Amino acid sequence: MTNQPIGVIDSGVGGLTVASELMRQLPKERLIYVGDTLRCPYGPRPKEEVIAYTWELVHFLLKRNIKMLVVACNTATAFTLEDLKSKLDIPVVGVIQPGARSAIKVTKNNKIGVIGTEGTIHSRAYPDALHHINSTIEVYDLACPDFVPMVESGVLSGSHAMQVVEGSLKPLKNHFEIDTLILGCTHYPLLRDAIQTVMGEHVTIISSGEETAREVSTILGYQKKLFQGNRKPRHEFYTTGKIEVFQNIARDWLQTDMNQVRRVELEEVVNYL
Amino acid sequence: MTNQPIGVIDSGVGGLTVASELMRQLPKERLIYVGDTLRCPYGPRPKEEVIAYTWELVHFLLKRNIKMLVVACNTATAFTLEDLKSKLDIPVVGVIQPGARSAIKVTKNNKIGVIGTEGTIHSRAYPDALHHINSTIEVYDLACPDFVPMVESGVLSGSHAMQVVEGSLKPLKNHFEIDTLILGCTHYPLLRDAIQTVMGEHVTIISSGEETAREVSTILGYQKKLFQGNRKPRHEFYTTGKIEVFQNIARDWLQTDMNQVRRVELEEVVNYL
Repeated sequence: MTNQPIGVIDSGVGGLTVASELMRQLPKERLIYVGDTLRCPYGPRPKEEVIAYTWELVHFLLKRNIKMLVVACNTATAFTLEDLKSKLDIPVVGVIQPGARSAIKVTKNNKIGVIGTEGTIHSRAYPDALHHINSTIEVYDLACPDFVPMVESGVLSGSHAMQVVEGSLKPLKNHFEIDTLILGCTHYPLLRDAIQTVMGEHVTIISSGEETAREVSTILGYQKKLFQGNRKPRHEFYTTGKIEVFQNIARDWLQTDMNQVRRVELEEVVNYL
Repeated sequence: MTNQPIGVIDSGVGGLTVASELMRQLPKERLIYVGDTLRCPYGPRPKEEVIAYTWELVHFLLKRNIKMLVVACNTATAFTLEDLKSKLDIPVVGVIQPGARSAIKVTKNNKIGVIGTEGTIHSRAYPDALHHINSTIEVYDLACPDFVPMVESGVLSGSHAMQVVEGSLKPLKNHFEIDTLILGCTHYPLLRDAIQTVMGEHVTIISSGEETAREVSTILGYQKKLFQGNRKPRHEFYTTGKIEVFQNIARDWLQTDMNQVRRVELEEVVNYL
């Protein structure tokens, strides 16, 4: 039914940038978010492990009667999206295809940059998604392994952040004439200002979170599953890790008070049957 | 199957701005376009007539085995979208909801302007689509009846165009602090530069065509109906009116040679059974 919640899964706190955009663009929709902070990050883990962990989060939310699933983690999207789509009877949206489609919409010279974690870049998920739609797109991708640790330590601006961003993006900035850059990691929107400054105003920055929320809206609208009427929804946030860490990051990043964060024991997530 | 064409219907030539974006954003997809130039414009016609004409165009394309229907006309979308969606077993995308969703994504102050023909503005379709998703959006809409005749007469820039655009947009520009403006008519993207100049750089202009193509991509991707593999598709364009007029406008507007335009007798469209 239309008043069921939208489920959001993430390896930790990065997906909060996606959740925040869902709340902004779909203010009547109710979210249930589960972040697997205790086992974060998923990026360096073997594919089979990421698939197993992701399914555990999915089952945790399926028991809570979600009408749609959002995979708010690039690594989990790269490894599990097709499997989830084929096995679940609710719509499933990942964070990769929305960013790819938006980049195709805005690029004028068909030269698109992608930055992400090493896992996401090595998976080739973005070039595959872009070329699936348009084989002539030139894709320049680059892993930026220093960004996530910096963001998680709370450094989002200032001279140190600028130095790290500038150093990391140098190969992309100097050698290719991209006009569009996809932030292929849910942490990166927190560094958006620094990235925009380094790349220059002529490069359009695409944030997965914004574009994913837009596509969630498109598909719920298409399926006539948008909430009807008016309400101020009560969201639920679960973390397998420490509540305080999750709350602090949510407050710092999203300027929202996260009183509704609850801890869920990893055992409950793992033993979902 | 994925190699079936996408069907595009329009009251005339305006929908070519949508077709052109579909070709750009989905270069592997094949289009069949029918423009009812002989009975254009639909805007001033009674609702029942618009519904009847639209269904005729739809049946003309259904016989050609389309995998998706794009209603590339704001008036036809306002009057027929829900009916078409409930009765057809292929996905149907109109031009109103994509523009609305994109505006919700980009606005920062939740003040959105909409310009369109008198028919579209009076239908309240844009405010309804926006408020369906977010009831707190402030919508300022304005009919610009002088734009379509000017565009169809080939005046897209220069001092006369600027005067007309400036005069028409005055109420919107002077009285409201909108940060986003939806071009709620498929002809208006041809006046985009003039509209941007008049409204100022701080207003983001949303073009239905770009956003509709993006949502066609989203829904085809979601339904696994995107064309697999590589091809340079051969599109088909049909007009119930004069081929030369259609070709000239297509050439002027889209800088594409439209050798593939064919005339279809209105009788064939009307007597589709």
